Amino acid sequence: MFIYALDTMATGVSAINRQLRLAARPQGLPGPEVWQLTDEEVPEPATREILVKISHISLDPAIRGWMDDVRSYIPPVALGEVMRAQAVGLVIASRHPAFAEGSWVTGLFGVRQYALSDGQGVRIVDPQLAPLPRYLGALGITGLTAYFGMLEIGRPRAGETVVVSGAAGAVGSIAGQIGRLLGARTVGIAGGGEKCQWLTDTLGFDEIVDYKLGNVRRALRRAAPDGIDVYFDNVGGPLLDDALAVLGVGGRIILCGAISQYNTGEGVKGPANYLSLLVNRASMTGLIVFDYEDRYDEATDQLMAWLDAGTLIAREHVVRGGIDAFPQLLLDLFAGANTGKLVLELV
Amino acid sequence: MFIYALDTMATGVSAINRQLRLAARPQGLPGPEVWQLTDEEVPEPATREILVKISHISLDPAIRGWMDDVRSYIPPVALGEVMRAQAVGLVIASRHPAFAEGSWVTGLFGVRQYALSDGQGVRIVDPQLAPLPRYLGALGITGLTAYFGMLEIGRPRAGETVVVSGAAGAVGSIAGQIGRLLGARTVGIAGGGEKCQWLTDTLGFDEIVDYKLGNVRRALRRAAPDGIDVYFDNVGGPLLDDALAVLGVGGRIILCGAISQYNTGEGVKGPANYLSLLVNRASMTGLIVFDYEDRYDEATDQLMAWLDAGTLIAREHVVRGGIDAFPQLLLDLFAGANTGKLVLELV
Repeated sequence: MFIYALDTMATGVSAINRQLRLAARPQGLPGPEVWQLTDEEVPEPATREILVKISHISLDPAIRGWMDDVRSYIPPVALGEVMRAQAVGLVIASRHPAFAEGSWVTGLFGVRQYALSDGQGVRIVDPQLAPLPRYLGALGITGLTAYFGMLEIGRPRAGETVVVSGAAGAVGSIAGQIGRLLGARTVGIAGGGEKCQWLTDTLGFDEIVDYKLGNVRRALRRAAPDGIDVYFDNVGGPLLDDALAVLGVGGRIILCGAISQYNTGEGVKGPANYLSLLVNRASMTGLIVFDYEDRYDEATDQLMAWLDAGTLIAREHVVRGGIDAFPQLLLDLFAGANTGKLVLELV
Repeated sequence: MFIYALDTMATGVSAINRQLRLAARPQGLPGPEVWQLTDEEVPEPATREILVKISHISLDPAIRGWMDDVRSYIPPVALGEVMRAQAVGLVIASRHPAFAEGSWVTGLFGVRQYALSDGQGVRIVDPQLAPLPRYLGALGITGLTAYFGMLEIGRPRAGETVVVSGAAGAVGSIAGQIGRLLGARTVGIAGGGEKCQWLTDTLGFDEIVDYKLGNVRRALRRAAPDGIDVYFDNVGGPLLDDALAVLGVGGRIILCGAISQYNTGEGVKGPANYLSLLVNRASMTGLIVFDYEDRYDEATDQLMAWLDAGTLIAREHVVRGGIDAFPQLLLDLFAGANTGKLVLELV
C-alpha cells in the first residue's frame, strides 16, 4: 500500500551527513541564532550498532523543553550537540543482530540525515501497514502519549465530558478521538474555523471551542454544562485556568504539555484557579509517555486496530525539505500552523 | 478523666442565644465590619430535632472560603446567616430518638450559644474518652482531614519523604505524625523557633524548615535530598512553588488548603512551577473530607488508638471567651498565632 523507493534511499550514501546542532540556549522562541548546521562524514556502525538513513523527522513541542538547561525527565541537549528528535529511517548498514539492513525503524535519532544507534529505544516499523510519517504520529510517541494519557490518567467513563486543548494538534486530535472511542462526549479547543470544522466533521468531536473567538470560559460552560470530567491539557496558560473554572467534581486533568508557556521568555504563568482542584476533589497529573515503554506494543496494536477500522483518523502534516528546514518548521509548530502531526520529510 | 460540669451547663438555659452573623462579604482579612452579633431567644426543638448548648467552637481556615460568594464544595454562608462552624455541645433538649438529653455531640452548629439540629451530620462524642476540644481537633474534622488526605491521597510508603506545610497547625501537626506512623521521613514547614522545636521534640518530625528564616527552597532540598514524595499542602503560595521545585518523581501533592491565599484580596497566585508535575509524572489532588463521611468511624477509631498508645500527640490551643471573641480568634488563626488546634471555649 505505502511503497517507498527503497532502492534510491538505500543506495548512494551521500558523502556528507548534515546535522542540526544546538549552538545557544534560546530565550523565548528559538530563532536562527540558536542553531548551527554542520556537514560531517557519514559514520560507520561499530559492533552492535546500526546506521540509519533518516527519512522523516518529528516536530514536537517537547523539543522546546529539551533546549533549556533545566532539570527535567530527560537531560537537556548540550550546547554543540545534535538536536534531539524522534525520527523514522532506513537501516542501511547493520552490525546489530536485531536490525536487518533494509528495515525501517523509529527512534530518537536526532535532526540529521544519518544516525548511528545501538538499538536502544529503537522500534522496527512496517511501511506496508501505514505510511511512514504515521509512525511519528498516531502510531508513534504522539499516539502513545494520547493513549496512555487518556487510558491511564484520564480514564473517562461513558457519558463523561472530555475536553482537549490543542485539539487539532498531533496529540490532541488523537486524544479526543480516544475519548470518543471510550464513550465520552468530546469537546475540542482549537483555533480557527478550518481546524474546528475538521475536528467536528472528520474526527467526530461533539463540540468545539474556537479560542480565537474569545470568551473561552463561557463557551466551555456551554459545551460542558455539568462540568469537565477529563481535561487533556497540551496548552497551559489562560486556557488551563478556564478549564479549571469549569472543572467538574472528581475531574482529572492530564498534564501533557503547556505549549503556550514554552516560549514566553518570562517564566511560566501558574494556574490561578488551581484551588478548583481542591473544591472539586479533582486531580492534575503529569504524563511522560516514556514511563509506559513496556506497554508500547499493546498500545500500538490497539491504535492500529482503530485506524484499520476507520474509527480513529490520523492526519500528518508533512513538509518536504532538508535539515535546514527544521528551525522554521519548529516555529510553525509553535504558531499552530499545523493540523495533525507535523513531520519533516527529508529530500 | 475529663470531667465537665454537666449540671451547670445543662441547667439554667439563659434567656438569650447570642449568634454571630455574616453582615458583609470580606475583602481580604475579615474585619469587624463583616460581622453582626445578634441576641435572640433560645429556640425550642421541633419533632426530630435537638437543642444543643454549644461549649466549644472550631476555628478553621476553611471558614474563610465559606464567606465568599463563589461556587464551592458547599454553598457560601448567605449574608445575614449565622456563621457556619464546627462545634461541640451538650444536648439539653431532644425530640430526636437518636440523641438523648445529656449527650455530647459535634456538628456544624455555627457560631452561637444554642443550636437546633435535625441530627444530620451530628456525631455523639464521649468526654470520658478525650477532652471535648479534641473532638474538634485530632478526633474531629481536623484529624479526619489529615487521616484521609494521608491515607487516601498521599499514601506514603515506608522510607519516603513526606513534607507538610502549616505543620504546627491543626491539620498539619496530625498529618505529619500520620506520615511518621506510616513509616515515612517527615519534614515540617512552620514559622518560628517555638513551633519548630515542638514539632521535632514533641511530635517526632525528622526535620523542620522554618520559613521565617527564608530560603525555603534550599532548606527543602537539604531536608529532602531525593525529592519530596508526598507534600501535604495547607498553605499554597510561594511555599507550594518551593515544594514543586523539590518534588520527586511520582510525587503526590495533597491539596488540603491554601491559607496564604485566602485573604490577599487580590486573587489567588497560581503555582508557577506546576509543570514540575509533568516532568515528575506527579499529581496534585484536592481533598474534601466530607467525601469520606461513611468512613469517619473507622478513622476515628484508628486516631483514638494512636492517641491512646501515645504515638499520636494532639494539642489544642483553647481560648475561653464569648461569641464576640470569634472574629479576633479567626484573625489570630490567619496570623498563625496558634500551635495545634485553635478552639473557642464558650464561657
